[in-house]
Amino acid sequence: MSLENLKATCAAIEAIDADAASAAQTRLDQKTKPRKSLGALETLACRYAAIRRTPSSPLPKKAIVVMGADHGVAEEGVSAYPQAVTAQMLLNFAAGGAAINVLARHAGAEVHVVDIGVKEPVLHPAIASERVAAGTANFTCGAAMTEAEAVRAVCVGIEQARSLARAGVTVIGLGEMGIANTTSSSALTAVLTASSVEEVTGTGTGISDAAKLHKARVIARAIELNRPDPNNPLEVLRMLGGLEIAGLAGVVLGAARERVAVILDGFIASVAALVATRLAPLAAGYLIASHRSTEPGHRMVLRALQQEPLLDLGMRLGEGTGAALAMTLLDAALKIELEMATFESAGVSDSGA
Amino acid sequence: MSLENLKATCAAIEAIDADAASAAQTRLDQKTKPRKSLGALETLACRYAAIRRTPSSPLPKKAIVVMGADHGVAEEGVSAYPQAVTAQMLLNFAAGGAAINVLARHAGAEVHVVDIGVKEPVLHPAIASERVAAGTANFTCGAAMTEAEAVRAVCVGIEQARSLARAGVTVIGLGEMGIANTTSSSALTAVLTASSVEEVTGTGTGISDAAKLHKARVIARAIELNRPDPNNPLEVLRMLGGLEIAGLAGVVLGAARERVAVILDGFIASVAALVATRLAPLAAGYLIASHRSTEPGHRMVLRALQQEPLLDLGMRLGEGTGAALAMTLLDAALKIELEMATFESAGVSDSGA
Repeated sequence: MSLENLKATCAAIEAIDADAASAAQTRLDQKTKPRKSLGALETLACRYAAIRRTPSSPLPKKAIVVMGADHGVAEEGVSAYPQAVTAQMLLNFAAGGAAINVLARHAGAEVHVVDIGVKEPVLHPAIASERVAAGTANFTCGAAMTEAEAVRAVCVGIEQARSLARAGVTVIGLGEMGIANTTSSSALTAVLTASSVEEVTGTGTGISDAAKLHKARVIARAIELNRPDPNNPLEVLRMLGGLEIAGLAGVVLGAARERVAVILDGFIASVAALVATRLAPLAAGYLIASHRSTEPGHRMVLRALQQEPLLDLGMRLGEGTGAALAMTLLDAALKIELEMATFESAGVSDSGA
Repeated sequence: MSLENLKATCAAIEAIDADAASAAQTRLDQKTKPRKSLGALETLACRYAAIRRTPSSPLPKKAIVVMGADHGVAEEGVSAYPQAVTAQMLLNFAAGGAAINVLARHAGAEVHVVDIGVKEPVLHPAIASERVAAGTANFTCGAAMTEAEAVRAVCVGIEQARSLARAGVTVIGLGEMGIANTTSSSALTAVLTASSVEEVTGTGTGISDAAKLHKARVIARAIELNRPDPNNPLEVLRMLGGLEIAGLAGVVLGAARERVAVILDGFIASVAALVATRLAPLAAGYLIASHRSTEPGHRMVLRALQQEPLLDLGMRLGEGTGAALAMTLLDAALKIELEMATFESAGVSDSGA
């Protein structure tokens, strides 16, 4: 749980395997359908092959890691919901009643809930307690985290990914819960993508336009006060981030090192992945973008990650819900390779088209 | 199997139930998530409620009807594949090796394969033989079908939908197979949406740009020769359509009459639905657009249907593959209503946002 651990993880990440992707496409081209006529499903199957370093894989074992934490900046009145909702929702995840539970079951994915820094500890047998702090500090008054806290939170995520990989998980979806975490994400996005605060600030869970203006002013004030160096991702993260965002960045790094695919969710999870790729550029190969959120900053983050999402359903819920839906598409894509007949086996004439 | 049967079916279609949709939204608004934060999934659940006339439904029983037929215009050299592939692929569907079989299994949907007019009969216990003709006539030399053939093909589809509804099916996906059927679909689209032949003609299963120019000229010649009245959908259908397109139009009409939801697939299936809505405008309420195909004419058809598709994955395979993927989203949407906790049941604070 140290900076050395973090740096060693980053250094151990290897590039994905382009040859395996080509070999997977060759296999898909023998199936009874016009070449590449399944579009993004074929691209997805090939990406998974590159990540797993083999042209043909069994169906993935899937998990969604939902990290929950509180944000000091919530006291600036930037969210539609009271801070207590973070803990309440973690308990809802543990009880299986939230949207992510429903959609993860639908996708055949396990849900792993982690309290990485809710204000009051959330005690439940189904919640892993990996608390780094009792929430972040209000970043309009100083840095959100100390460097030690940020590093520790990233290492919690690395460890989470490693333990899932050892249990046979091959795809991890990123989920989060933290009242005010779109505020933190917008601040991170503005700095990391050199965007204006106005264009990356949205209505989050549903605030009014007036409240959105206030939220943008809070973010601008925090950036002005902290002045993080955009080229120092760990500094940006500790000054403006959240513990769950740091944890998810760690999940990305740990997964990439273990050659496990990472499915992004919406704005917050994608910002965490952006931080991870700034720490370790090769981690980008392991990312699969699930959906485009209605949060305006998500566009900038996806662009910075050079990712085109699979889905665009006007969703803005978080929790990993978009990642869960995308997992059903990944399964579909892999089943094409695993189950379809070839032109030869089915006796169908091939035009080569 | 008569024009009277067709007209009676059209007349018996009722409007979908807007009150049930509102009641479904009210139920969704009590779930532990910001209001409408699941975007198109919520809209989809509400549309299904309107179709089924009840705010809460059990998970749907799903079927995909794949109609196969041959097209006389194939002899003009408009496709990348030989005509024999229609029959070969129907046998592939029957054996379970095609993309639609894989994706329908993934979605938990039955596949019903119908030979509605392949050139030579396709004999297999898993293929329903409902042959109206041995393919259509080449519509560059006259009408593709007689009125009696067109009506009979539509009635085959109506009967198929009725029999599935009686077996408890509540969602039908439209699938098709027919070498040269994008040529027929482009001709139908040009006439029914008043578009130019050039903008609605694409590369189908994968022809060259030169072959696409030839295809557009063939279509223009057919329209010039037949001169169907755009306001007479049955005339447009019989002059330029295919037997499988007529059959799927019938499936839409039969499903709408039985209050069964219809999931469109790509260009060809959507054209069939457009014909159905011109015959019976209220059928439009029962349609759910699954995906946007790369075939350029699909855009015009979706616009004419006022449908926004759920998926945009660069697919162009047909068979019902897009419909099958959308069925997994419909299940997800309905599970949200069926399985999620409410703010009250989970003890989560509601902001009303």
